[in-house]
Parts: sequence; C-alpha cells; structure tokens
Amino acid sequence: MMDLSRRLAAEAMGTAFLLAAVVGSGIMAEQLAGGNVGLALLCNTIPTGAILFVLITMLGPISGAHFNPAVTVAFLLRKEISKTDSAAYVGVQILAGLAGVLLAHAMFDQALGQVSQKVRASPGQWISEAVATFGLVTTIMLTIASRPAAVATSVALFITSAYWFTASTSFANPAVTIARAASDTFAGIRPADAPAFILAQLLGAVLAIFVTRHLLVRNPVPGCAPAE
Amino acid sequence: MMDLSRRLAAEAMGTAFLLAAVVGSGIMAEQLAGGNVGLALLCNTIPTGAILFVLITMLGPISGAHFNPAVTVAFLLRKEISKTDSAAYVGVQILAGLAGVLLAHAMFDQALGQVSQKVRASPGQWISEAVATFGLVTTIMLTIASRPAAVATSVALFITSAYWFTASTSFANPAVTIARAASDTFAGIRPADAPAFILAQLLGAVLAIFVTRHLLVRNPVPGCAPAE
Amino acid sequence: MMDLSRRLAAEAMGTAFLLAAVVGSGIMAEQLAGGNVGLALLCNTIPTGAILFVLITMLGPISGAHFNPAVTVAFLLRKEISKTDSAAYVGVQILAGLAGVLLAHAMFDQALGQVSQKVRASPGQWISEAVATFGLVTTIMLTIASRPAAVATSVALFITSAYWFTASTSFANPAVTIARAASDTFAGIRPADAPAFILAQLLGAVLAIFVTRHLLVRNPVPGCAPAE
Amino acid sequence: MMDLSRRLAAEAMGTAFLLAAVVGSGIMAEQLAGGNVGLALLCNTIPTGAILFVLITMLGPISGAHFNPAVTVAFLLRKEISKTDSAAYVGVQILAGLAGVLLAHAMFDQALGQVSQKVRASPGQWISEAVATFGLVTTIMLTIASRPAAVATSVALFITSAYWFTASTSFANPAVTIARAASDTFAGIRPADAPAFILAQLLGAVLAIFVTRHLLVRNPVPGCAPAE
Repeated sequence: MMDLSRRLAAEAMGTAFLLAAVVGSGIMAEQLAGGNVGLALLCNTIPTGAILFVLITMLGPISGAHFNPAVTVAFLLRKEISKTDSAAYVGVQILAGLAGVLLAHAMFDQALGQVSQKVRASPGQWISEAVATFGLVTTIMLTIASRPAAVATSVALFITSAYWFTASTSFANPAVTIARAASDTFAGIRPADAPAFILAQLLGAVLAIFVTRHLLVRNPVPGCAPAE
Repeated sequence: MMDLSRRLAAEAMGTAFLLAAVVGSGIMAEQLAGGNVGLALLCNTIPTGAILFVLITMLGPISGAHFNPAVTVAFLLRKEISKTDSAAYVGVQILAGLAGVLLAHAMFDQALGQVSQKVRASPGQWISEAVATFGLVTTIMLTIASRPAAVATSVALFITSAYWFTASTSFANPAVTIARAASDTFAGIRPADAPAFILAQLLGAVLAIFVTRHLLVRNPVPGCAPAE
Repeated sequence: MMDLSRRLAAEAMGTAFLLAAVVGSGIMAEQLAGGNVGLALLCNTIPTGAILFVLITMLGPISGAHFNPAVTVAFLLRKEISKTDSAAYVGVQILAGLAGVLLAHAMFDQALGQVSQKVRASPGQWISEAVATFGLVTTIMLTIASRPAAVATSVALFITSAYWFTASTSFANPAVTIARAASDTFAGIRPADAPAFILAQLLGAVLAIFVTRHLLVRNPVPGCAPAE
Repeated sequence: MMDLSRRLAAEAMGTAFLLAAVVGSGIMAEQLAGGNVGLALLCNTIPTGAILFVLITMLGPISGAHFNPAVTVAFLLRKEISKTDSAAYVGVQILAGLAGVLLAHAMFDQALGQVSQKVRASPGQWISEAVATFGLVTTIMLTIASRPAAVATSVALFITSAYWFTASTSFANPAVTIARAASDTFAGIRPADAPAFILAQLLGAVLAIFVTRHLLVRNPVPGCAPAE
C-alpha cells in the first residue's frame, strides 16, 4: 500500500508538471510570438517534448510514468497493472492534470478557473487523435520490449512530431484533454469537444494493443537490425 | 515466412508513419507559418527527424527499419538481405508510403487523392539527391559497424541536417519520392520530376556502398577516437 | 585541498560558461530576431539547454557540476557536501557568474559593467521561480538515484522546457540571478527584483528536498518501468 | 600507411560534409527566412549541430573525427598524434573544406568559385573565436577523459550553443574559416578577416590544453558526480 501511494505521488507530480508545461508554454508562446501561430506552436512543442523526457526518466522507475489514462488502460489490457491500481492511476492523473493547469494559470497571473472556448471538432481531428494515441501506445510497447532505456526519448520525440503531423496537435491523453478544457488559452479545447477526442484516443490505444501483439516479436531477427 | 510477414508489417507501419509525418507536418507548418517558408520548413524538419528516431528505434529490431528502397538496395548489394525479401520490402515500402500520404490527407480533412504540382527540377537538386542518399547510406553503414545503438539518432539527425543543406530538402528515398508525388501540399513533388530524383538517389546509394567498403575499417585505430 | 581547488576551478569554469551562454545568446538573439520576442527567446533557450548538457557532462565528474547555489544548498541538506565546501562552491559560483557576464559583454563589444533595468516582479514570477527550482532540484535528485547517466540531458531539457512554461523564464539559480542583474540586455533582471527571485528559488529547493525524500524509492518496483 | 590513407579519407569526407552543411544550410536558410536573420541563423545552427553528431559518430572510430586543424594541433600538443600525421590531417582538412564549399555551391546552382565580401572584424569577434575554440577543445578533452561515448553529442551541442553566445557565430576551426572565405553567402567571411580569426582560434586551443592539464583529474571524486 505504501508502494502504491508512492506510485500515485509520482503519477500526480508527473501529470501536473506535464500539464503545467503544456498549458504554460502555450500561454508564453502565444504572448511572445507576435501573432505567428506557427512560431507559437513550435514554442509549445519543444517544451512539451523536453519535459516528457525529463518526467519519464525521473519518475518511470517509481510509477512507470504513465501520466495518461490511455496508457494505463493499455497496460491493463496487457494485464501488467491490476484493475484497482489502474483505477487509482486514472483518478490521480485526471485530478493532477487539473492541478497542473491551475499552477500554469497561477504562474502567469491568470484567473485560476477557466473554461476553454477553442473549437476542436472535425473528422480529421478525431482521426488524428486515434492515430496519435495508436502511435504513442505502439511506441511505448515496442520500445519497452526492445530497448527500454530509449522509452523516454521515444515518447518525447513521438509527441514532438505528432504536435505537427496531426490536425489536432496530438493530445493523445484523456487526462490532458480534460485538463486543457479548463484553460481558455492557446492549448485549450472546448469542453463539448473533449468527449469525442477521448473516445478516439481510447480506440487508438486499443488498436495499438491489438497490433503490437502481432508485431511484437519475442526473438528479433539477429544481424538484421541495430538490436540495441 | 511468418518472420517475413512480421518484418513486412513493420516496414509498412514505419513507412506509412514516416510519410504521414513528412506530409502532415508539411501541411500544418505551411498553414500556420504565416507565409514564412523558412519557418514552415523548420516545422517540417523537426517532426521528420523526431519520427525517424522513434520508428527506427521501435521497428529496427523487427525489420531493420529500412523504410526506403535505396537502403534496401544497399543492403542487397552487401548481400545482407536476399533478393526475394528485398523485392517484398520495396513493394511494401512504396504501397505503405502512399497509404501514409492518404492518412495525412484524411487527418487534415483534405481530398485523399492528389497530384502534386510542385516543380522540383534542376541540376542542383539532382546533385542534392545523390549527395543526400550517399550521406544517408554512408551514415547507416558506418554507424552500424562501429556504434549500432546510435543508428536511430544518426539517421534522424542526418535527415534533419540534409533538409537544409541540400537544395532538394533531401528526399533521399524512392518510396518517399513516389508518395510525395501524390500530395499537392508543402512536401509534394510533380510526378514528372520524380524519376530523376529516384535515379540520383540510387546512384548515391551505390556510390556509398563502394566508398564505405574502402573506408570501413574492421579494426579501428585504438586510442585515437571515441570508440564508443 | 588540491582536490577542492580543482573542484572549484570546475565550478568556476562551468558557471562562467553558463552565464556567457545565457547572456551572450540573449544579446545575439535580440539583435537578430527583428523584434519578434518569441523567436528571440527560442534562440536564447536552445543555446542555454545545449551548453548545460555540455558543461554537466564534462565537469560533472570533477565537481558535481552544480553551477548553482540552490543545488549546492540541496546537496548540503542531504549531507552530501560539507558546510565548508558548500560555502566555497557558492562563493565561486557567484563570482564566476559575474565573470561570465563580463565575458559575454566583451564578446559583443559592449560596456563591461552594466546594471539591468528589466522589471521582473509579479506574484506569478515568484511562483514561477519556486516551481522552476523545485522542478530542477527534483529532477537532479531523482535522476541521480535511478539513471545517473541521464542527469546532463534531463537538466538541459528541464531548463529548455521551463524557459517557456514559467512566467519568469526560469532563472532557478541565485548565482545566475545575481549575474543577470549585471547585464542590461535581453536576459537581465533589475537588481531590486533579484532578492525575491532568490528567496523563491531557495524555497523551491528546500521543498524539493522534502518531497524527494518521500518519493525517492530505494528499491523501485521492477517490471513496471523502464528501469534504465 | 594504409591506415593513414583510410584516416585521411575519413577526415576528408567529414570535413567536406561539415562545410557542405554549414554553407549549404546557410544558403537555404537565408533564401527562405524572409529577411529575418535570427530565423536564418537558427536554420543554419540546427543543421550544423546535427551533422556534427552524425560525422563524429561514424568517422570518429576511423580517424578520430578532428575535421579541424585546431583540434589536430591540440592532440599534437598532447603528443597523441605524430607530427607527420598531424601535418597530413591539416592539409586534408583544408582541401576537403574547400571541396565541401564547392559541393554546396553546386547543390544550390551557384557559381562554384566565390570570394566572400562579409566583414567579420572586431575585437569582440576575435575574443569570441578564442573563447569558442577554447570551449570546443576543452569540451573534447574533458569529455574524452570521463565519458567518451558523449563526445559526439557534446561537440554538436557546444557548437549549437556557441553559434549564438559568441559574436562571431563560432567558426572555431581554421579549415572552416578558410573554406568559408571561398563562399559569398550567408556563412562567408572576407579573406582579409580570416587570419585574425585563425590566430584567435589557435590561441584558444593552446589555452585549452594548458587549462585541461590542470583540471583533468585522473581519479575523479567518487560519490560527488554523475560519473557516467
């Protein structure tokens, strides 16, 4: 039980810092970019990718560094986390994500409680969220299997890339989606648009578990690949 | 045979994600960059380099992570892949590249089928493609020999650099070239201009195999270099 | 004693180079960015993160690569550095930081002695400095415990991220704060605003030592995380 | 002798690619940046840092990956390369640097032979070149001693940072300086200004050898630093 409390503390700290970074860097980037949305998104992308490496590296050994209900659900489908623990993980992730948004608002002298007005609703964005979460979960599962030390780098770089190659800027995380609905800033999403994002994310995660089960080769072909 | 099907699935997933990232981030970057082509290319470069690290790291142990007919041909010249397997690899890479472009179009709510109008034809661009592919294949072969764990980073950073130091933005990949001809967006290339690019790429790959055979020292000079 | 002198020389070189990089890149970035503050901050962020990796990697084995009184205080609270040594570290860090600023001014043909006029004073910025230093010290302590080879990367990427997700651009370092007060350039801070920043930084560092004591698991849960 | 020829081939390939990347990305960046010099320099910096990692990683095991007469002189002062070999290295580096510039011009459909008109002459720039080369050689020597696998990353990131924190954009390399005098593009330097740059670079390199001899601790203090 002591162990679970430490793991939950790690999930809480990691998810809160992740949201503070996503929302805070969005505010700073929009304020400074002089109206150039491309520059603003770049200055939102780099801090997000960077903090993901940091958080996964330092908290992975404690809690597994999920920070993401879709990832926790994926590990549950693989029976690598219990139902009870996964429920606690998801609850903590959602609450800590909201706390991280409050922290970002406090750091930028903004109203703590906000509701986003940003419309994010189109078939392309729903496809994007499914693709992004599929890619994220696939990256985690295949990289843990073959080169676990690279997971932090790979997750950070996957999200860095997916900010740009998806039409939704790749939320890929239900706790992040809920928390960003509570910020009427650059990174926000209208609450009414959140459920479709979350549904698409969960579909992507489930599909990834199905596909990686087929692709995940226990004995990789030697001599053919940089195995480590 | 089971093994080959898994390897082909890995090549398909990797090449599709690579093209989705190249074309998708090109669309997003151009939409957001406010007409600054330099900023748009930077926001196309970073996602491309990032996804290459991710894909090579997670799929390398399964298929070798070629995602590129020029690389497959290079391994064939070195007799490290059979003729049959290499033909299957190349076919899958071309089809999956096209699928990745369709996916990018779907994510950005665009017409799925497109034909690029972007002219890319000049002696400098042909030299660029030969140089880029020569550099890419040399990077792969020399890095596999001396420090295999760095291949994913080196390929990602080589392409990151070559986007800028070549006049063609470094396609360096026949499957990528064909697929980008099917997208009338930032990353496109007019179909009529594709064959010269592909020819230059194959020349660069063959030259790289010739040069690395000479340079590839089995017993590196000790004490003189950071060997690992 | 010989050992301490070498360690102090390493702290001096590292802190001086860090400040030269922070202040120098700030000057260059502001001069070239054409009035776009977001672009300028990006071109201040990347050199800062990059030099942190370099300095921590090369000087860490000699002095521990603190370059930061808040970090030295954190190690003192953990009884991993003596009171005498930590006092010497802090003194050298402050002097070397000022020397680094002079060096940056000399490289850019500016007056050596300057006093910053830049106002940095708001509750949000004070919260930001506490959060930034809390995050920095937590990153160092947890990463040293589980994956020491990643400390240089994690510190570099934490600061890269925190430049953007805090309202203060994350000084997170009393020696850096004092030194930046001596530069009336992009990275400066009005001397009158420095004490509140330093107080917030020390509060963040102390809080981090308290929290990491609880979170720092000596025997991480196996099978649940990318342990290395 | 066979060995030396292979090492010289590696120095030639590496220095040529380095210059092609520096000059080529400078041309591309200036063409696309819409007059924003800060953006152009950023798009010159990232490709330069990226290719340095790639080249040092793949050619380091063959030749030591100097690509730089100042580095070769530094190894000569440490008696880690013979006088004969170092003379051959320097000659090849200068010729290959010029070849790399020709290659960049060819890729961008420019006149092959050019003479730079760009004035780079001020006390601050001379101090900058001494500081940059001092930092580069110090980085190499200290990182080889304590963590050789990180040399490629550290050199790449040092130059990435020094592009911005020095007033000269950190040439830090006599062969690069000579070659850039032969390009009337973004990265050029007026031939008349090259000798002072080279002199400052050599002074910086010699100073680095002196300082690292003092700082280089054979037996680092254990428990005090993330040793690897």
